[in-house]
Amino acid sequence: MKTRAAVAFEAKKPLEIVEVDLEGPKDGEVLVEIMATGICHTDAYTLDGLDSEGLFPSILGHEGAGVVREVGKGVTSVKPGDHVIPLYTPECRQCKSCLSGKTNLCTAIRATQGKGVMPDGTSRFSYKGQKLHHYMGCSTFSNFTVLPEIAVAKIDPEAPFDKTCYIGCGVTTGVGAVTNTAKVTPGSNVVVFGLGGIGLNVIQGAKMVGADMIVGVDINPAKEEWGRRFGMTHFVNPKEVKDVVAHLVELTGGGADYSFDCTGNTDVMRQALECGHRGWGESIIIGVAEAGKEIATRPFQLVTGRVWKGSAFGGARGRTDVPKIVEWYMKGKIEIDPMITHVLKLEDINKGFDLMHSGESIRSVVVY
Amino acid sequence: MKTRAAVAFEAKKPLEIVEVDLEGPKDGEVLVEIMATGICHTDAYTLDGLDSEGLFPSILGHEGAGVVREVGKGVTSVKPGDHVIPLYTPECRQCKSCLSGKTNLCTAIRATQGKGVMPDGTSRFSYKGQKLHHYMGCSTFSNFTVLPEIAVAKIDPEAPFDKTCYIGCGVTTGVGAVTNTAKVTPGSNVVVFGLGGIGLNVIQGAKMVGADMIVGVDINPAKEEWGRRFGMTHFVNPKEVKDVVAHLVELTGGGADYSFDCTGNTDVMRQALECGHRGWGESIIIGVAEAGKEIATRPFQLVTGRVWKGSAFGGARGRTDVPKIVEWYMKGKIEIDPMITHVLKLEDINKGFDLMHSGESIRSVVVY
Repeated sequence: MKTRAAVAFEAKKPLEIVEVDLEGPKDGEVLVEIMATGICHTDAYTLDGLDSEGLFPSILGHEGAGVVREVGKGVTSVKPGDHVIPLYTPECRQCKSCLSGKTNLCTAIRATQGKGVMPDGTSRFSYKGQKLHHYMGCSTFSNFTVLPEIAVAKIDPEAPFDKTCYIGCGVTTGVGAVTNTAKVTPGSNVVVFGLGGIGLNVIQGAKMVGADMIVGVDINPAKEEWGRRFGMTHFVNPKEVKDVVAHLVELTGGGADYSFDCTGNTDVMRQALECGHRGWGESIIIGVAEAGKEIATRPFQLVTGRVWKGSAFGGARGRTDVPKIVEWYMKGKIEIDPMITHVLKLEDINKGFDLMHSGESIRSVVVY
Repeated sequence: MKTRAAVAFEAKKPLEIVEVDLEGPKDGEVLVEIMATGICHTDAYTLDGLDSEGLFPSILGHEGAGVVREVGKGVTSVKPGDHVIPLYTPECRQCKSCLSGKTNLCTAIRATQGKGVMPDGTSRFSYKGQKLHHYMGCSTFSNFTVLPEIAVAKIDPEAPFDKTCYIGCGVTTGVGAVTNTAKVTPGSNVVVFGLGGIGLNVIQGAKMVGADMIVGVDINPAKEEWGRRFGMTHFVNPKEVKDVVAHLVELTGGGADYSFDCTGNTDVMRQALECGHRGWGESIIIGVAEAGKEIATRPFQLVTGRVWKGSAFGGARGRTDVPKIVEWYMKGKIEIDPMITHVLKLEDINKGFDLMHSGESIRSVVVY
């Protein structure tokens, strides 16, 4: 079949909107009509050529929502008409990782996904006979895409695509880091570094689970209003205090019970760890650091009880936890609508990248 | 009263065995006759002048066992005749840390303990009218010492002093890191870096809780026999493999479920983290690093599920958990006897330091 898609023919060039060829789903695969997709920093990271493992030409996009239109042989968990969110972290429920019960990092199709192809080693996308790579196993910048059955989460059909697509990455990453990775307890003091989309979702996750003090940290004073909108109780601008770690330890009466880095800056990651409470402060790294950058601290920080962790896709098992987050949204336990600051047509997708780079958008969404 | 003690008059000099003056216990304090004391690397660290906060003159020693001989006003939890282990990490059961249920790092007397004095700000020890500092709140290199009530653990009176003194530091640090900090689960794969006394105690702790594979790592091949003696199932000499992290990941079928650094070397701490299993490997730092040294890794190691922690005094609450470890020893669940390689008289205490520095001893114990 033919489908409209935004193709990344090479790094550092704008996406091109063209008609591409898409093969139908093979065994264990599903064809999904993407109804809406968010534009995420990770797409930009790859497009800007910063990801050394980035492949071109490819169809980017990994934060979508849509409808199953056709299923391949052997597919049992979804059927045409089901509403789904594509999962860049699949959930096979059979690999060592899934069965461990200790991680969401399913390894079933990791090798082929990293190579930009489907589990059988081939791509479903082509343009004028030239193979196009899949991206993060999703390629939501195409109106239609093919995904493995284990990489779609069936969701409430009442949920609006132009909002729930954000659950495909940003919302789950932030909220899930609170509920799955840190398991923040009611009454906790939480410090969140970086009040972009992920940080705001951490904040609303912390609010949802009953944190007492939710401190947002950002060098951009304009972020304060955004933070408060989602439950932040205190704002700290590191440029306005002498020593941000000492300031946060003081403000929280001894240190953060939980801290989250949503900046990707390794110096900030260190601050996030070191503002943790002696004896139990847990710090969760969510942000993606520049290639080659390392985190560092004195081991004494850990020996005196702080814990350093990370979170990928909010520690969420895609097929199990993502539908729950959709329900939380539907019940009003978390908000998404105010974070969708820009809605674009596919033709304007490059504008969405500009809005993100300039910091103007929290989230731009393309609606097909 | 007078008591015999080994006094550290200054750094980098041998201890001197002299009669010192000891004031009796004040309110909330107890007088303990130390019957045996181990000689630990931390004592040497201070004596060698490596601890920038080390105070002189002082009476070192923090790994003892003895008998309460007198109690001050208000003391209710112990009485003369009780057998006790002094606690350099006390347990007041009333401070924010104790009440959190999340850490053993009681803060009740932290400030004065760090200054080498009792909680009222004064020392009980003097020599020819000159004040001597207490050390780590214990000073077990004195035949008699005074301790706060919250810094003694009442233990089984049948337990032999010359063995249980080791529970005052080394045994609890190693075994407790397994049972309290990591909470190693049965069937786990465990990797232990550094097979000194702490490493051996980690090994026997891992064996006690039912770990499947217990891998010991040491550059000294002579340690292999020691490790196997306490439950190690595999030995790796980093000098004999190309890439120790890759080798350990392979050996453990994907990485360690739990790893422990018992070396104090920050490069080894990094290896310990990075040999952890993707998705859930937890690495516990036990070793004390040189002043100024830092640990580092790529944040990707944490984002893909590894967890970096530390452990002090094995995460053990002194008055609650130390008596339990004594019981484990009495029931044969853990061994101590073969680790006590040398028994000395107080006059020969400096020889104990030599034995430790040369690596000849696992543990030297002074019996009064």
